[in-house]
Amino acid sequence: MAGILRNYADYLPVTKNTPGLTLHEGSTPLLFAPRLSERLDLELHFKYEGLNPTGSFKDRGMVMAVAKAVEEGSHTIMCASTGNTSASAAAYAARANINCFVLIPDGHIALGKLAQAMIYGAKIMAIKGNFDEALSIVKEITSKESITLVNSLNPYRLEGQKTAAFEVCDDLMGAPDILAIPVGNAGNISAYWKGFNEYYQSGVIDKLPQMFGFQASGAAPIVRGSIVQNPETVATAIRIGNPASWEKAEEALESSRGLIDEVTDEEILEAYHLLASMEGIFAEPASAASFAGIIKLKQQGRIEAGKKVVCVLTGNGLKDPDSAIQKAAVQPWKVNNDYDEVLNAIRQLAGDSHGVV
Amino acid sequence: MAGILRNYADYLPVTKNTPGLTLHEGSTPLLFAPRLSERLDLELHFKYEGLNPTGSFKDRGMVMAVAKAVEEGSHTIMCASTGNTSASAAAYAARANINCFVLIPDGHIALGKLAQAMIYGAKIMAIKGNFDEALSIVKEITSKESITLVNSLNPYRLEGQKTAAFEVCDDLMGAPDILAIPVGNAGNISAYWKGFNEYYQSGVIDKLPQMFGFQASGAAPIVRGSIVQNPETVATAIRIGNPASWEKAEEALESSRGLIDEVTDEEILEAYHLLASMEGIFAEPASAASFAGIIKLKQQGRIEAGKKVVCVLTGNGLKDPDSAIQKAAVQPWKVNNDYDEVLNAIRQLAGDSHGVV
Repeated sequence: MAGILRNYADYLPVTKNTPGLTLHEGSTPLLFAPRLSERLDLELHFKYEGLNPTGSFKDRGMVMAVAKAVEEGSHTIMCASTGNTSASAAAYAARANINCFVLIPDGHIALGKLAQAMIYGAKIMAIKGNFDEALSIVKEITSKESITLVNSLNPYRLEGQKTAAFEVCDDLMGAPDILAIPVGNAGNISAYWKGFNEYYQSGVIDKLPQMFGFQASGAAPIVRGSIVQNPETVATAIRIGNPASWEKAEEALESSRGLIDEVTDEEILEAYHLLASMEGIFAEPASAASFAGIIKLKQQGRIEAGKKVVCVLTGNGLKDPDSAIQKAAVQPWKVNNDYDEVLNAIRQLAGDSHGVV
Repeated sequence: MAGILRNYADYLPVTKNTPGLTLHEGSTPLLFAPRLSERLDLELHFKYEGLNPTGSFKDRGMVMAVAKAVEEGSHTIMCASTGNTSASAAAYAARANINCFVLIPDGHIALGKLAQAMIYGAKIMAIKGNFDEALSIVKEITSKESITLVNSLNPYRLEGQKTAAFEVCDDLMGAPDILAIPVGNAGNISAYWKGFNEYYQSGVIDKLPQMFGFQASGAAPIVRGSIVQNPETVATAIRIGNPASWEKAEEALESSRGLIDEVTDEEILEAYHLLASMEGIFAEPASAASFAGIIKLKQQGRIEAGKKVVCVLTGNGLKDPDSAIQKAAVQPWKVNNDYDEVLNAIRQLAGDSHGVV
């Protein structure tokens, strides 16, 4: 209960010189979903990573990367990011009392997406160029100066992220049959697979799960087998056309006899809405790609009834309130300040949903 | 690790008929703050309630209230709320598969504030009237129909909320010297005091903390000793002019030899910014009232050096990204896609903050 570096030190590159950095990341809920399990005839659990300190799974990898940066004497970290990575990097840099620089492409970036990084004190620079060019210059600078790269090319990121697989197994007292996960940069599916394998090799679990990855249809390079030049999807956290961990992900899919498939934005938003309205779980749209994929495959008869399935929900729905508003907003039902009128409205709005008002 | 009803059953009105409702609320981080402790010459800890399932401390009381509603056969809950209470009520109603109605005053409510309640499936009604009138009609309807009131008048709410005090003591292995907390409706300060007293009476802790409550200057009825007709503050979650638990809060302040004071919006936003940029903790503005109060009192010499202080941070900063943007937003530093230019910008932006780039 005090962060992943302490909880899983034996499985991580933690030495006696690694600082005990933590914002109490990890130990996120694995929620059994009774209503959705019944509806789909599966044993469905959700790994809700939105309750990490900055609201996404990125905190697991970032605490490891920043701790190692500090251990190695670095005073500055840097990344190219317009979203969850920059928020997480900025938070752990603040906690560790080091500098954090975030490089973004110039133009078209809503300040709201950067609000977290800014309030945590990161310095933001906008470069004339696209995201790939921003990443490219970050790589060049961090390779030549005493500044640490914390984009997903930093190998400590995956080390930290694999702890989510440990937690799933610890909570279930074993591995699930299927681990379903959204795939953007493909680092997380690779990290989970690494985690499951380490637990298997240590004898903590006696079987490995199948890895099911899901990309958004408008950003599905691995499904299609080729780079997507202009990826587009409502699931912004997985809007990536050329995944950094493509090969590692392919290996995880093959070794686990898993699969990769795509889900449309409509399917993602429908799954997103079901999660909130039937189980009380509010996740980022990208998170719901995992569950949308499971719904699709089950309906196609490609998953046997009764399977134990864990869907990874990578981020908090509060990261993207606009999607919630667009999906669920209806103008409030207007009523006069009158007992009978309010009661009448309640009866109409409740309909037959639970039979009793 | 599976919700407060299970973790603290012995201290709660949990019977064999109470459903095991949970979204894994509670078990939130108690974060020691090394940098701010040194700056203020105190032992400072933050109880970060923003990592509850819907992003605020309200989940502790709501899980208890909704579980008891279900136990008592209710199929419908109702509240008047424009913020955190409605989000929490809607989430637990979804989880418990019952109806949730939210009554709001007509006009001036941004849909963003209601996005959570809507995505969780609550039915929202806007009445012609103000908040007090909305609450009044909710009280009347829930007293006459088989609909359960889940506003803070529901006594189970405080029962659930008191578990945060238990967790503080469990983590510290004893009580702090001072518990600092934002005061709006005054329910939470009352709940913490109840929790500390129950642990004291059970012999789990051997002393009680002093309770320090902080209201926003524009919404400080308890400080002033009279109702505030039109409360105004950036800290919307504590913008309350006539607290429901006023008397209970007075009793907690008196019995604990505590105090209540006010902090300005400026002091709140400064504390809010310090928390994020020095410790990596992003809380709702209202949350920062507790820390703003401690800064103020320490500077006035009203707290002895070295005291063990726990500041309660009631909600997640992601609930109110606009405040972060207003407080921290600066236009990104624009640079050309050029190695030397980017490096030069880094050196300028870093300044002397850590001496090394």
